[in-house]
Amino acid sequence: MAVSPDTIKAWLLDLQDRIVKGLEEVDGKAFLRDEWTRDAKDGGLGGGGISRLVEEGNVIERGGVNFSHVTGASLPPSAAASRPELAGRAWEAMGVSLVIHPRNPYAPTVHMNVRYFVATAEGQEPVWWFGGGMDLTPYYGFEEDAVHFHQTCFDALEPFGADLHERFKKWCDEYFYIKHRKEARGVGGIFFDDFNALPLEQSFAMTKSVGDSFLLAYLPVLNRRKDIAYGERERDFQLYRRGRYVEFNLVLDRGTHFGLQSGGRTEAILMSMPPLVKWRYDWHPEEGTPEARLYTDFLVHRDWLAA
Amino acid sequence: MAVSPDTIKAWLLDLQDRIVKGLEEVDGKAFLRDEWTRDAKDGGLGGGGISRLVEEGNVIERGGVNFSHVTGASLPPSAAASRPELAGRAWEAMGVSLVIHPRNPYAPTVHMNVRYFVATAEGQEPVWWFGGGMDLTPYYGFEEDAVHFHQTCFDALEPFGADLHERFKKWCDEYFYIKHRKEARGVGGIFFDDFNALPLEQSFAMTKSVGDSFLLAYLPVLNRRKDIAYGERERDFQLYRRGRYVEFNLVLDRGTHFGLQSGGRTEAILMSMPPLVKWRYDWHPEEGTPEARLYTDFLVHRDWLAA
Repeated sequence: MAVSPDTIKAWLLDLQDRIVKGLEEVDGKAFLRDEWTRDAKDGGLGGGGISRLVEEGNVIERGGVNFSHVTGASLPPSAAASRPELAGRAWEAMGVSLVIHPRNPYAPTVHMNVRYFVATAEGQEPVWWFGGGMDLTPYYGFEEDAVHFHQTCFDALEPFGADLHERFKKWCDEYFYIKHRKEARGVGGIFFDDFNALPLEQSFAMTKSVGDSFLLAYLPVLNRRKDIAYGERERDFQLYRRGRYVEFNLVLDRGTHFGLQSGGRTEAILMSMPPLVKWRYDWHPEEGTPEARLYTDFLVHRDWLAA
Repeated sequence: MAVSPDTIKAWLLDLQDRIVKGLEEVDGKAFLRDEWTRDAKDGGLGGGGISRLVEEGNVIERGGVNFSHVTGASLPPSAAASRPELAGRAWEAMGVSLVIHPRNPYAPTVHMNVRYFVATAEGQEPVWWFGGGMDLTPYYGFEEDAVHFHQTCFDALEPFGADLHERFKKWCDEYFYIKHRKEARGVGGIFFDDFNALPLEQSFAMTKSVGDSFLLAYLPVLNRRKDIAYGERERDFQLYRRGRYVEFNLVLDRGTHFGLQSGGRTEAILMSMPPLVKWRYDWHPEEGTPEARLYTDFLVHRDWLAA
């Protein structure tokens, strides 16, 4: 069966639906649906998308699961930095991207993204690749959760190559590193980009496997943590740590920067922002507390599947 | 009288002291003092600074007035983009930078910065310049406040050149523009960089005039607004609008990016972050409300001194 952009798009739309349904079942509150289109003008972006989001849910304080499909007449050199030969080509990008911020401080924030990109030119082979991954950002660490999340990522990739998980796990650790804090954003997961090492059909199958694993990776964790009793101390720590999420996404995340600079839909892109965030000067947890253990035992690069 | 780096440094330290005292008098809570030094290593930054800050004050919810003086053995090409001939030179930068976030939503956030930069090379004339400015970010707009703030900026610059205020006001409007929101960050003020159009002594005098005007520009505004009664609605709007401040500083501000990337002191740089911030999807104020008037009447480029 040949894989066409339509095949990929149909899967992405279905994936968005399934993920939203899975999250709605846990939350009990329906996600909003916002469909948008944008005309291409002056060589800018054209296309559209479907934003699905929930705020003030029963479990999810703020979260979005966005589909977008955008096209451009001429790839800007900045977007083709690693492949300068593609500058000026027509291009097409589609993907699903999500960030979920639960209210309960014991339930981790999660991010997942799968995307397909293709650049075309008259009389030349199209150049395509896939990208994506998922990563988990706890406020209070649980080894069980980190192991389950990483194991699910491992299982998703394993059929497509023995070395993939190790490479994509390391890539994730490197990508989601907050340099100015010298801290990992969370306990990691997997990340890949520019992936076309396998033929189109298998590369797509691998990406599908990652996307289709998201609910398996996250829902058991969310269900285990969403109803744990907490107080002001835990809430306060969560709001403080959410500041790191903001710092990563706004200072360092290439996807966020590319989206905002290329005239993407700001409100959809910034669905990754937490609903409520605190900053506090030079704060450090006391040794021996659960908050300190987050830093020492979880926000470090660890082989979670070694045990 | 010759102006030396020591002269400039002495003024900056005195300015920091005076501003902190002025703010402490209004707030009633003493600012903390954090002195730091950093060894230059591997051609990186050396130097130090004094952070002065307050959190949970009576008037100021979070604010910092930072002095720093850093030196480098070799100016990185990225920092010398507009003057490539300076790459590789030894350099020295010093300045005072402040951001004040009052608790009362009727009291505006303010930012001020003055800085001196010099690049030296054996056997060549040193290349120096000044930069700085101040700008006001209200949550609820008051024409009286905007006019007073701009008038004080005008008065500070007027002795040094008839066209300076108009240029620096426009520069401020352009610099503090949140492109992905198509919104001004606030009501503006003045901004200048790479300034050496006047001889050193006069350029310094102009920069001094700007720094020395800060309390004159801000304290009357703060005093007028700090005790106005407000409720949940105003507080909520303030927290939402503070998100724009975060977006500007983390996505767009060159100073913040340069500081974080060059290994500056993260906690001092991120004193600009508000203490508590909200994000909410695609929110717009109802027409005819004071919140709507902020957008239509204040977050636009206006000639505040025209009336």
